[in-house]
Amino acid sequence: MEITSLDNPKIKLLLKLNQSKYRKKEGLFIVEGAHLVKEAKNLNLLVEAYSVNDIDGYIKVTKEIMKKISNTDTIPTEVGLCKILENNKLSNKILILDAVQDPGNLGALMRSAKAFGFETIVLGEGCCDIYNDKVIRSSQGAIFKLSFIHANLVEFISNLKDYDIYGTDVVNGIDVNEIKEKNKIAIILGNEGNGVSQKVKELVKKNIYIPLNNTESLNVSVAGGIIMYVLKD
Amino acid sequence: MEITSLDNPKIKLLLKLNQSKYRKKEGLFIVEGAHLVKEAKNLNLLVEAYSVNDIDGYIKVTKEIMKKISNTDTIPTEVGLCKILENNKLSNKILILDAVQDPGNLGALMRSAKAFGFETIVLGEGCCDIYNDKVIRSSQGAIFKLSFIHANLVEFISNLKDYDIYGTDVVNGIDVNEIKEKNKIAIILGNEGNGVSQKVKELVKKNIYIPLNNTESLNVSVAGGIIMYVLKD
Repeated sequence: MEITSLDNPKIKLLLKLNQSKYRKKEGLFIVEGAHLVKEAKNLNLLVEAYSVNDIDGYIKVTKEIMKKISNTDTIPTEVGLCKILENNKLSNKILILDAVQDPGNLGALMRSAKAFGFETIVLGEGCCDIYNDKVIRSSQGAIFKLSFIHANLVEFISNLKDYDIYGTDVVNGIDVNEIKEKNKIAIILGNEGNGVSQKVKELVKKNIYIPLNNTESLNVSVAGGIIMYVLKD
Repeated sequence: MEITSLDNPKIKLLLKLNQSKYRKKEGLFIVEGAHLVKEAKNLNLLVEAYSVNDIDGYIKVTKEIMKKISNTDTIPTEVGLCKILENNKLSNKILILDAVQDPGNLGALMRSAKAFGFETIVLGEGCCDIYNDKVIRSSQGAIFKLSFIHANLVEFISNLKDYDIYGTDVVNGIDVNEIKEKNKIAIILGNEGNGVSQKVKELVKKNIYIPLNNTESLNVSVAGGIIMYVLKD
């Protein structure tokens, strides 16, 4: 049996999940493409899978419906409905994001965090929704393998004991290469335009910086990638 | 005097420059925002500047016209018409891009290249147009300070003497930290989905890789940033 109507309740739910508020309310999000559907299934996060083809265990939909569900230019053959699963697990290395807004940057940071062992990401107010379709696409599956904590950063940082906590700054601070104690470490990256916010800056005593030519600066996902690379185990 | 009509020849030219083919034909491109207009002026690349305000030396336009010229959601108060200036200068460190398609990645790579002294960028076929508005925005002015060469990569690499040329690969190759000879070096980064193309791979004997946890991979602008950071002077 194939779903052919946009009024089908299952499809109506999928379409609603394009909006952040419904993802939060339902505790569900969508992934696009066979690779991510399979990854979600392996991790027991898959609720239902949809395909334009006849695949055992998948709900078949028309191409027109798939086009409506999808947010990409090239329409996927499969999408998966997945559970949002959050936990408060703290890894030894933590990435704290202070209003990182661009979905591409957030997805790239997830890939680097996973690759370099920063397995917990803490998201302060003003960050892009992690279940945004562009974030999921650019995270390339890393989103399934990290712990996420949404928090008020001033509270979170104030209560974070036993960690070396570093802000990041374009010019002032300790050269990232000089950091010797890497065991329990938390790195704060700031907003694309404004950097780390004033109230977070006031809390944190130490800043990391990356030595650059002249007065240049780096894209936040690149800066975060370099810092996590240098501070990996 | 204020330009109020979209039929004004100057405005018609600006609107045409949203398309890559007209930028190439006219040798001109547009930058948005006071910061980039100023930077273009300092570098003698500014042909004309436009503003919604009365500024000495600027051509005044209505907000409606500025909205049409601009590609951003927040309409800038100023845009600049700039000359495309290319030269064939080869810096000691060269970044070679093999079909890097995403404008955000290309802009971020420019920032890193400038920050770490890779002052020549060679663009093979299939790369995003460097004068695309999103590239310019994400390059944060680095676009003005680099040399760009458009080339057939097989020809370019075959003729590049005296340089250590490295491809990049997710798993195989020399750990980037093991590279000791950094004087004249060229690094090739590949397409977001497919990596370095087969015909370029066949030409290049050595690959660099970044050690990662498990089978993860990095966003191309992050990988490029880390490699250029490690290989900077």
